[in-house]
Amino acid sequence: MNRDTMNRQILLASLPDGPLRTDHFRLQTAPMPQATDGQVLVRTLYLSLDAANRAWMQGATYRAAVGAGDVMPGGVLAEVVESRADGYARGDLVMTETGWQDYAAVPAAGLRKLPRVEPLTHLLGVYGIAGLTAYFGLLEVGRPKAGETVVVSAAAGSVGSLVGQIAKLKGATVIGIAGGQAKCDLLTRELGFDAAVDYKAGSLFRTLRAFAPKGIDLYFDNVGGDVFEACLFNMAQHGRIVCCGAVSQYDGKPPAHGPRGVPGLIVTRRLRVEGFILYDHMQRADEALADLQQWVAQGRLKAPEDIVEGLENAPAGLVGLLAGENIGKRMVRVA
Amino acid sequence: MNRDTMNRQILLASLPDGPLRTDHFRLQTAPMPQATDGQVLVRTLYLSLDAANRAWMQGATYRAAVGAGDVMPGGVLAEVVESRADGYARGDLVMTETGWQDYAAVPAAGLRKLPRVEPLTHLLGVYGIAGLTAYFGLLEVGRPKAGETVVVSAAAGSVGSLVGQIAKLKGATVIGIAGGQAKCDLLTRELGFDAAVDYKAGSLFRTLRAFAPKGIDLYFDNVGGDVFEACLFNMAQHGRIVCCGAVSQYDGKPPAHGPRGVPGLIVTRRLRVEGFILYDHMQRADEALADLQQWVAQGRLKAPEDIVEGLENAPAGLVGLLAGENIGKRMVRVA
Repeated sequence: MNRDTMNRQILLASLPDGPLRTDHFRLQTAPMPQATDGQVLVRTLYLSLDAANRAWMQGATYRAAVGAGDVMPGGVLAEVVESRADGYARGDLVMTETGWQDYAAVPAAGLRKLPRVEPLTHLLGVYGIAGLTAYFGLLEVGRPKAGETVVVSAAAGSVGSLVGQIAKLKGATVIGIAGGQAKCDLLTRELGFDAAVDYKAGSLFRTLRAFAPKGIDLYFDNVGGDVFEACLFNMAQHGRIVCCGAVSQYDGKPPAHGPRGVPGLIVTRRLRVEGFILYDHMQRADEALADLQQWVAQGRLKAPEDIVEGLENAPAGLVGLLAGENIGKRMVRVA
Repeated sequence: MNRDTMNRQILLASLPDGPLRTDHFRLQTAPMPQATDGQVLVRTLYLSLDAANRAWMQGATYRAAVGAGDVMPGGVLAEVVESRADGYARGDLVMTETGWQDYAAVPAAGLRKLPRVEPLTHLLGVYGIAGLTAYFGLLEVGRPKAGETVVVSAAAGSVGSLVGQIAKLKGATVIGIAGGQAKCDLLTRELGFDAAVDYKAGSLFRTLRAFAPKGIDLYFDNVGGDVFEACLFNMAQHGRIVCCGAVSQYDGKPPAHGPRGVPGLIVTRRLRVEGFILYDHMQRADEALADLQQWVAQGRLKAPEDIVEGLENAPAGLVGLLAGENIGKRMVRVA
């Protein structure tokens, strides 16, 4: 088979009922798709790997559940190879959600055209879902004030690494929570965090109390579960918790219980706990991107990336991401 | 002993480590307190019983914990019997927190002088902590909009009964959650609720789904625990949960776990979960009282009350309140 006339696709072959494994996926080759009127044929350059990919297998969330036999969905940075739609030409870069495959024919109406920036990978990271999620979640939902103590979990991950740095830009004291000393070192030595806590080493509750003796003003939660609980019990009065994700809960059955202290501590400490989804904020994406690009250009915002080579390695890349092996935004180079 | 020269006091004799019982309390008589300069001597007329009284025994909250041997604290409506402070005279009505006793000498500085309204008991109910809590919690924190579906738990209690009626005044569809058919009947027949659900009868989750098929826009939570969870799983996108109290959690050890769905559903449905304490809103109490008095005068807001006779019956009154035996605001007539 000629790779240029066939389309490799990775399917979710079976739904996991425990931790995700690479054998839940299956590679197949399908005929090259054809663009019809109003469509473009796109070739995947980079594929975004996100913890949310696993959550989609648990059931409907803000999108329909993924089912067994589906091409694994996911956000991609793609290039137009053939256009049958006004306004699009060969070579245009677009963001789409065509998932884990080389090629797709898609209606031009659902695409977002992107500028060619250097490096291109930033379009999936700091200028993509991760960057916009960090930006709006922190600044619109969390609203940190200078001098406040901000804690972020999954702090070496795609969103967390940006949240912590943006909070620093806004004058907050920033504590990151991450798994392992290597990630913690990165946070304090490379990304300017004031402190980093390894949640795998000792009592997170006590360590946070030592680092934030006056309490946490703003906790940006990417993980849920025990880490959420340890932060909740360390919140300052009138503190805010931004609920962005719950990665500790995705790779298995939904947990039987939630964190202790809900809702008791929410009352006594007058907390605001607020969830958000990026899509609700996209009408202001240009404004966010202008800020993010300026901060990156000024060297004030670093965007660590973690690139897996080859579509065939996407399953292992996602399984590894769920185990916390990435630092920064993980993606797959497909072409 | 002459009751007019002695002061009856009810002490919390021992801290409960399970459900509160009347034998956790002890009555003693102490000498009549004496007002010094800047103080007034007050006589308790009515004593407020509140689920929060039990929470204070679990540890420090928004106030210090109650300890064994303390005069049981609590809010009271009292009358000045002797004044040694400017601006206060015999016969003035005041709100104070002198707890479960006949008399107390207190600094005038900490008192709030009250008008004599008819009936006086409204000062501890609809014009007291309960009314102001319902008003600010619903209107400032929850902000119901006309046409929204509002659910309130402990709906036949002091706060819940007012929350539901005020939500109706603001044009919401209101569903109350209460224990037992008698309370549910009161809500729909006397207080104008659109529906009432007995949480002791069948699956609360399914019943709520049937009554609110488009989801709950605003849940005013007085109870926490399983009822919180059943409401959380029925929330509409962008819904709000006002955390006012967690009475299901007070009468025993703190629970080992919180509700399922935290924080996952908070993210996917973009919920705002917010706790509050009335004291943070007291600077606007006059505005709230003007509204509450107008609604009561117009017959649009009913204020059910449940009066226990005699200071000596306060322990049984509180134990019964924790078991849900009251309808509306429970208080003790002391003098």
